[in-house]
Amino acid sequence: MAGEQPNGRDDILDSAVRLFNERGYYGTSTRDIAKGAEMTAASIYHHFASKQEILQSIMGRALQGALSMTRAAVIRAGGTPDGQLRALMRAWVVFHATHRRDAVVGATELRSVEGPGRDRVVALRDEQEALFRDVVLRGVEESVFATGFPYEATRSIISAGQSICMWWRDDGPMSVDELADRYEAIALAIVEYHPA
Amino acid sequence: MAGEQPNGRDDILDSAVRLFNERGYYGTSTRDIAKGAEMTAASIYHHFASKQEILQSIMGRALQGALSMTRAAVIRAGGTPDGQLRALMRAWVVFHATHRRDAVVGATELRSVEGPGRDRVVALRDEQEALFRDVVLRGVEESVFATGFPYEATRSIISAGQSICMWWRDDGPMSVDELADRYEAIALAIVEYHPA
Repeated sequence: MAGEQPNGRDDILDSAVRLFNERGYYGTSTRDIAKGAEMTAASIYHHFASKQEILQSIMGRALQGALSMTRAAVIRAGGTPDGQLRALMRAWVVFHATHRRDAVVGATELRSVEGPGRDRVVALRDEQEALFRDVVLRGVEESVFATGFPYEATRSIISAGQSICMWWRDDGPMSVDELADRYEAIALAIVEYHPA
Repeated sequence: MAGEQPNGRDDILDSAVRLFNERGYYGTSTRDIAKGAEMTAASIYHHFASKQEILQSIMGRALQGALSMTRAAVIRAGGTPDGQLRALMRAWVVFHATHRRDAVVGATELRSVEGPGRDRVVALRDEQEALFRDVVLRGVEESVFATGFPYEATRSIISAGQSICMWWRDDGPMSVDELADRYEAIALAIVEYHPA
């Protein structure tokens, strides 16, 4: 593509994500990121003002990516709470299995996000939790979900899906599709969905 | 107590846990740990050979602590799978709410454990997972738990409880006891326990 550089923004982000997974944000230097992207530390600063800005780009990509996928899934799922929860959990699981490294940074490096960018990251995380919670609460209101603890149920569903990024391996025996089927069933069990 | 030093082993571990929570293992220096414990870096080496040894002590304390509490709970719970799962989840939740900082290190710093000590840490983690899995599998065998996916159910129960260390605040409106009640209900829902 015209204007595309061989070692650009995406190479920097890929190198940073890999290193943040291995050693965390504070354990990674801008020099390490440059080395991993096969460029000089100076040329990193053509793209990002600081290591903190790189982290915020990755966090934004991870949280915004998951939110977009899950929101779109809910909207396309039709009207029933159980259909919406299935679609939501499916998208959440697929995201965490297919964007593992981004997801690990998203799940572990909130503590490292500083300054005004922090508000944006926290807002995205809260938005994601609200999407799950609204689907669960509506199911409870309509007596489709019998759980007495919708807030804890919501958190349990979110963390069950999120933890997939910590152990999922692409070369394992199960497909992402099969994994998503199973976690759909788990999510419905958590809210105590009993088909009428 | 005779022989107890004002700034000893426990102060070092407390300082290290606090810093590992804030900045991660790689982002924390032995000098930082010493400063937090109000001692010199040199005197740290009276107690620990390296920062890695400090990490392994904390990981061991966290994983061994959780394993001891949950094993004891299962043994005292009596014979039914649902009674065992209730006791197990209760102990797991109480541990993660009352040992938050240790638990965060235990959950996030496995990547940083190096050398032969790694085998011990991995063995403890696997032992913990096996305890949950055995209780769930036995419930399924005895048709007390109806889940079709006992492995994913096990993982979901573990991560639901584990994630409590990321958000629990001691000064919140809920007691640890009430929290444990709710997560007991969630764990039974995940395995699809239906009283006969």
